Amino acid sequence: MNKLRPYERKVYYYETDKMGIVHHSNYIRIFEEARVHYLNEAGLPFEKIEEMGILMPCLGIESSYKHPLVFDEPFMVYLKLDKFNGVTLKISYRVVSKRSGKLCAKGSSTHCFTDPELKPLRTKHSHPELYNAITQYLEYDYGF
Amino acid sequence: MNKLRPYERKVYYYETDKMGIVHHSNYIRIFEEARVHYLNEAGLPFEKIEEMGILMPCLGIESSYKHPLVFDEPFMVYLKLDKFNGVTLKISYRVVSKRSGKLCAKGSSTHCFTDPELKPLRTKHSHPELYNAITQYLEYDYGF
Amino acid sequence: MNKLRPYERKVYYYETDKMGIVHHSNYIRIFEEARVHYLNEAGLPFEKIEEMGILMPCLGIESSYKHPLVFDEPFMVYLKLDKFNGVTLKISYRVVSKRSGKLCAKGSSTHCFTDPELKPLRTKHSHPELYNAITQYLEYDYGF
Amino acid sequence: MNKLRPYERKVYYYETDKMGIVHHSNYIRIFEEARVHYLNEAGLPFEKIEEMGILMPCLGIESSYKHPLVFDEPFMVYLKLDKFNGVTLKISYRVVSKRSGKLCAKGSSTHCFTDPELKPLRTKHSHPELYNAITQYLEYDYGF
Repeated sequence: MNKLRPYERKVYYYETDKMGIVHHSNYIRIFEEARVHYLNEAGLPFEKIEEMGILMPCLGIESSYKHPLVFDEPFMVYLKLDKFNGVTLKISYRVVSKRSGKLCAKGSSTHCFTDPELKPLRTKHSHPELYNAITQYLEYDYGF
Repeated sequence: MNKLRPYERKVYYYETDKMGIVHHSNYIRIFEEARVHYLNEAGLPFEKIEEMGILMPCLGIESSYKHPLVFDEPFMVYLKLDKFNGVTLKISYRVVSKRSGKLCAKGSSTHCFTDPELKPLRTKHSHPELYNAITQYLEYDYGF
Repeated sequence: MNKLRPYERKVYYYETDKMGIVHHSNYIRIFEEARVHYLNEAGLPFEKIEEMGILMPCLGIESSYKHPLVFDEPFMVYLKLDKFNGVTLKISYRVVSKRSGKLCAKGSSTHCFTDPELKPLRTKHSHPELYNAITQYLEYDYGF
Repeated sequence: MNKLRPYERKVYYYETDKMGIVHHSNYIRIFEEARVHYLNEAGLPFEKIEEMGILMPCLGIESSYKHPLVFDEPFMVYLKLDKFNGVTLKISYRVVSKRSGKLCAKGSSTHCFTDPELKPLRTKHSHPELYNAITQYLEYDYGF
């Protein structure tokens, strides 16, 4: 298994709203950025997953907001694979400010593996390599 | 109490992603649009709430995705006030396609009433008119 | 020719930034909303254009900002077809506040008609009905 | 003068639209990210500019699109200060794919230096240090 570096960047100006903090919808996008980053880190670039004819539409998300990020604030996103049954995958996230060290948001997203027509795939049978690669990372010590 | 009309509009092109469906983060924004709409309908424009020095940052959201909306698809958003204790307010949402009649997404958001420094307010004492107006709408038959 | 009603809506909360005004990038999205609206009004829904296997990627945009829109401010978008040669189409926009009557932004976008592989189409030959419909609206009195 | 490194990142999934390419409005946001990055590189973090009570609202933008970026594609943004008279600043941008080496978009933005009420400032007099710092970078060899 590859060692997975956490995802990090700074807050963009256009992510703020008139309260002067990151708009809450943007954390859902930040979770996605982190997800794509970790897949890359694990040697499973999402681009290649899509080239295999696999999509990963989102079945559900939840997020709770603890401390607002502000413009230009640097942050890290930590991630953990929670559950995987070959068809659906649940991932958890923690967004932490690099400036204050505070937990800013935490949440999760659940995804379905589907074909291009958005029909669910049993990856254990349809794409065993992908299934095994993801299963392996369930064991990973995310230090979450 | 005013009669509250559901919120409706069509999907914008820029809300779609490369799967050809509305990106899941946009439903969180649609919930916000509906929230602002219903506050207007109830005679509590959010703009006036902010003029009273009150902010309503989001403490948490959750959403589950049932059926994807596509470009230009007309939809309605139904809303319901779930819980209100004077400090926090929980709201539920249902997004329904006007084309198919299908439930596309459902979810909820929780908000805190705060002063401009994001300190929580006990609106029962600090802003009794607002407190009473919201409390009244807890009883409303949303047909949700 | 159909009579074309201007596009109108209010500013969403998530469209504001920490300056308390609509982020300048969002006017480009508002132009797109208006474009789709006017195509619908003209009986040329963009959805049907895409069903004909035609895409309209953007070749360029420009916008100048005159007066900032704020949260919940109602606005209209007026539009005018500037130039059409069967391959490219240039459209101009004016965004006007319904509250102040002020011109808030004006701009233009240029689009290419292409096939699904983004190869330019000479619509005069490939899709004469679309070509004629658009050409007809070059003459329209937009009151711009 | 500091040496200014170009801005770089990869395309996010949520930046794509149903054509499978980056939505054209997002390049305006990418220009902003690059602007903030270069200000940081030049030792003029935008955050500090705002702490001086200075805002930089956008007066106008233009962009032309040459070659679409796709999901996960790495890109660089090069920037150049074009004109500065103490009140307004014009900046040019070039977005280049790191994968293909192709120019994907180029454009410019014009900004006004204002006080928090969006009144223009003559920075030569009101904030000479900022004025001098920016003037110095007009001479910089951007290799643009």
